[in-house]
Amino acid sequence: MPVPLVLEQMNESIEKLIAGIASGDRRSLSKAISAVENENELAAELMSKLSSKTNSYRIGITGPPGTGKSTLTSNIADVLSKDKGVGILAIDPSSVRSGGALLGDRVRMTKLTLAKNVYIRSMAGRGALGGIASGCDDVCALYEAFGFDYTIVETIGVGQDEVEIRDVADTVVLVLNPAAGDGVQTLKGGVLEIADIIVVNKADLSGADAIAGLLEESLHLRSRPGKWQVPVLKSVATKDDGTAQIVEQIARHREFVTTNEGAREIAKTRLQARILKKASTDLVRRALSISGTFEKLETLAGEVALKSKSLRDAAKEFEAILWDARRS
Amino acid sequence: MPVPLVLEQMNESIEKLIAGIASGDRRSLSKAISAVENENELAAELMSKLSSKTNSYRIGITGPPGTGKSTLTSNIADVLSKDKGVGILAIDPSSVRSGGALLGDRVRMTKLTLAKNVYIRSMAGRGALGGIASGCDDVCALYEAFGFDYTIVETIGVGQDEVEIRDVADTVVLVLNPAAGDGVQTLKGGVLEIADIIVVNKADLSGADAIAGLLEESLHLRSRPGKWQVPVLKSVATKDDGTAQIVEQIARHREFVTTNEGAREIAKTRLQARILKKASTDLVRRALSISGTFEKLETLAGEVALKSKSLRDAAKEFEAILWDARRS
Repeated sequence: MPVPLVLEQMNESIEKLIAGIASGDRRSLSKAISAVENENELAAELMSKLSSKTNSYRIGITGPPGTGKSTLTSNIADVLSKDKGVGILAIDPSSVRSGGALLGDRVRMTKLTLAKNVYIRSMAGRGALGGIASGCDDVCALYEAFGFDYTIVETIGVGQDEVEIRDVADTVVLVLNPAAGDGVQTLKGGVLEIADIIVVNKADLSGADAIAGLLEESLHLRSRPGKWQVPVLKSVATKDDGTAQIVEQIARHREFVTTNEGAREIAKTRLQARILKKASTDLVRRALSISGTFEKLETLAGEVALKSKSLRDAAKEFEAILWDARRS
Repeated sequence: MPVPLVLEQMNESIEKLIAGIASGDRRSLSKAISAVENENELAAELMSKLSSKTNSYRIGITGPPGTGKSTLTSNIADVLSKDKGVGILAIDPSSVRSGGALLGDRVRMTKLTLAKNVYIRSMAGRGALGGIASGCDDVCALYEAFGFDYTIVETIGVGQDEVEIRDVADTVVLVLNPAAGDGVQTLKGGVLEIADIIVVNKADLSGADAIAGLLEESLHLRSRPGKWQVPVLKSVATKDDGTAQIVEQIARHREFVTTNEGAREIAKTRLQARILKKASTDLVRRALSISGTFEKLETLAGEVALKSKSLRDAAKEFEAILWDARRS
């Protein structure tokens, strides 16, 4: 009967990990995050037994590739870590899909990894069914068990869902650049809606004032009484210029979302969406795990490929199969 | 008893729409796409009764904002429409979220809307649960009922899931720019993995050869015998330079995916993922529609907000509620 023994060992190592995290052991924290990233059995057990020391504030840093997000994240963490603990989570799809980013954000951040109050970890992006949110919630919970006061979530590169960062972060900082000629195009795609604070980084390049002015104008048109007015800041992250103002605006926004009734309602709705998303993913996974279900999906896909059935009809049939899966 | 009458009227208008689409009436096509976009009752009925005239080939155009995707799309459609029908679908999240793009891709494309063999339509992005894929499949099916030989799907702006375009398109064209200094950063994030063809647009700007060389080098390292070798092309879309080469490479890639065994397997897997995604969304929607379910989600979110329950535990409880939903 090897099963109880394995379970016992697993529980022992979970207790050890939890104790390690609570006592501030970085190696335990690192092991726990790896477990979460691999979504193994241990992770589920671990997360359900974890208790938080802090209720850390979540800052999201997002924007197009190459705008200087990593340097900005590093600067902000530098300031915050003077009297608080900061956990950084870099969502980096390339770390799995292409075996590592081509150029080194991670290299630039090494000064942080040596800092006492800062922990930095990158995690691969989305799975087949889940998004970034689920892993992100787990890592934030681990950071809270460790005792960090801030979690900074940074998304890296294209192919990310910037909309998802909106769901996990309390304050979202959108980083843009004064890209001469293309300035206005950067504003396309509803991206402004996700921002609580906009930073025009590389503000020493020409066009910075123009794009900042354009952004302010556009945001002004949408401003409403009683709602948060998105500030547009300028920075030169490589020279650590403008960091203090960014940190100040994050604090201002934090004050706003914790006291404003409308903002609190929005936060509640986001929490519902996150619970629903994780529950949905698990629900589908459970239905799929029932024997024969996947084979039916393969058959339906074959019919769609041969055009003998529309994708919509195939999906409808498969939904009914998933719905009835419990019966069998 | 008003219900049968309404149903009868609805069926009549569906028959009319379908006949209109089959006869090449653009107004019917437009109405049908609107129905799909709004996901109304009529849409579900309409889609299940539709029959395809063509099996249109799907080309995806993606890349960071401001790289010239719309102009390239317009150029490619110009060439293809000389002897074939082309339906364009621009996925544009801003058209709902911010009430329209700030600058006019649509304006740039007006010459196309006058062309006889081209139809262009933009659609807002993702819903709360679904992604872009579901609406995209429906519009492609409508284009096939109309008789188009090509569907070009263009994603616009940041906040898009470039990974999703990979699921719906047969050939994905990734558009990049020679952004001086940031060239290499553009390659981050596993974005190369989704491309079948890479176009360095605005190749008259300095740095074009450097980035093209770097891309080729990076792609060469990953090339495998028997697999598709991603070509790197240069273009100046505003001058219609390089369009012929792009169209040629699309045709080459089409030939490859229809004859190569490995490529056909990948296409089948993608189809399964799309069916699964749509079915999952519908499954969750059905479970949520059962009375009392949503109230339970609200209660759980309240507990998580007060930190009396972890998000993971709340999701686990809610998954069980969704799973058992049929019982009540």
